[in-house]
Amino acid sequence: MKFSGHTTTAFDPDLQSLAQLIAEMGGLAERQIVEAIQALIKRDGARGQRVIAADAAIDFMQRAIEERAIELIARRQPMAADLREVVAILRIANELERIGDLAKNIAKRVVLVDKEQLPRRSMRGLNHMATLMLAQLRDVLDSLAHSDVGKAMDVWRHDEDVDRLCASLFQEVLTAMMEDPGTITLGIHLLFCIKNLERMADHATNIAESVYYLARGETLTRAPKPDVNSMPALALSSY
Amino acid sequence: MKFSGHTTTAFDPDLQSLAQLIAEMGGLAERQIVEAIQALIKRDGARGQRVIAADAAIDFMQRAIEERAIELIARRQPMAADLREVVAILRIANELERIGDLAKNIAKRVVLVDKEQLPRRSMRGLNHMATLMLAQLRDVLDSLAHSDVGKAMDVWRHDEDVDRLCASLFQEVLTAMMEDPGTITLGIHLLFCIKNLERMADHATNIAESVYYLARGETLTRAPKPDVNSMPALALSSY
Repeated sequence: MKFSGHTTTAFDPDLQSLAQLIAEMGGLAERQIVEAIQALIKRDGARGQRVIAADAAIDFMQRAIEERAIELIARRQPMAADLREVVAILRIANELERIGDLAKNIAKRVVLVDKEQLPRRSMRGLNHMATLMLAQLRDVLDSLAHSDVGKAMDVWRHDEDVDRLCASLFQEVLTAMMEDPGTITLGIHLLFCIKNLERMADHATNIAESVYYLARGETLTRAPKPDVNSMPALALSSY
Repeated sequence: MKFSGHTTTAFDPDLQSLAQLIAEMGGLAERQIVEAIQALIKRDGARGQRVIAADAAIDFMQRAIEERAIELIARRQPMAADLREVVAILRIANELERIGDLAKNIAKRVVLVDKEQLPRRSMRGLNHMATLMLAQLRDVLDSLAHSDVGKAMDVWRHDEDVDRLCASLFQEVLTAMMEDPGTITLGIHLLFCIKNLERMADHATNIAESVYYLARGETLTRAPKPDVNSMPALALSSY
């Protein structure tokens, strides 16, 4: 990670060490998402439990990054561009921690749907959404590692795709619930899982904004969301 | 806010100014919750819109606190206890920003349930839960302002009450959905609102943990510590 174009200083190894921690934390978050979705699809309670337990590692890393970053600021008194990098690292660690939490939330539902029949069609949809979301996360972590603002902007723009998929999945699950009220409980669990994935993608988008901030020194403001009231299913899922 | 027992230094006015910002941000978050719930209960779309618009002020305050705190660290190079106060302020600002987001999420649903019949019983339950949650937030902000660790611990312990109320409300809404599938869409909106309140209470609990951290210099842990050896970057370095 190297955006600010400053000349190499003694500060760099510290920043690189923080960037390395962020990369590892990102890898951990990715793995948690994969594991949580797999546990859900396969209704594998033990796997879900491992995801729940592993979330503590992500929380721990966030705290460690925070403490090191702040200790670094206090010790080095960095100037503007360096300071911006440390601030961005703090923000990104925070977003990754939230993503980890959301993966844990999905994992917590695994045991709750354990004995019920998961509809194949919805599970395929959920898997598809998870794949899209993971690609967003991987791309944004990549854009961070390689200082690729264009790639970060792509992630930022593609958040809409995740939102659209989320809306259509919501509609599908909702229809199933209405057709067979016996599936309501299961449907609610699925809706929360879908929503968790959608929020993860939002956090990936926030990371894209931090990558932009790092490179340009200014905040990227988000375009207004479409008027959801004309789109009932989208309206249902978008908050 | 004064926990660390250091002698008065030139650092104090800066910290006090940050603490003042946190108190203001907390007040804003409280107001947002009240307004969002009232807008929902009264199905007042305009009021909901004002809550949505006002969230930007909370986001702005978080960024402002973050920037000032970090500028303060860079300029003053505080020692351990002072540094801990600044870190706690950063964390608390982050929690309050998340609470604001959740209030906004509730407000966004106001227009969506606008034309539907909200069941009185569930709305009373939701209002009750919001009251309990607000008490938690007020108490924890109070514990912060008066360095009252005992009060913070009370908040931490009472999170269970919110969780219990959340579970019983969920069951109630779920039953209504099963009895009358025509209420499924409305029910889903309510479930997400209930869940948002429950998560706000979690953030209040996190603030309680920060108050504890400020006073004692150690983290109040809810789960066993992770195995650091599974985290290469951390294990490699001096942690």
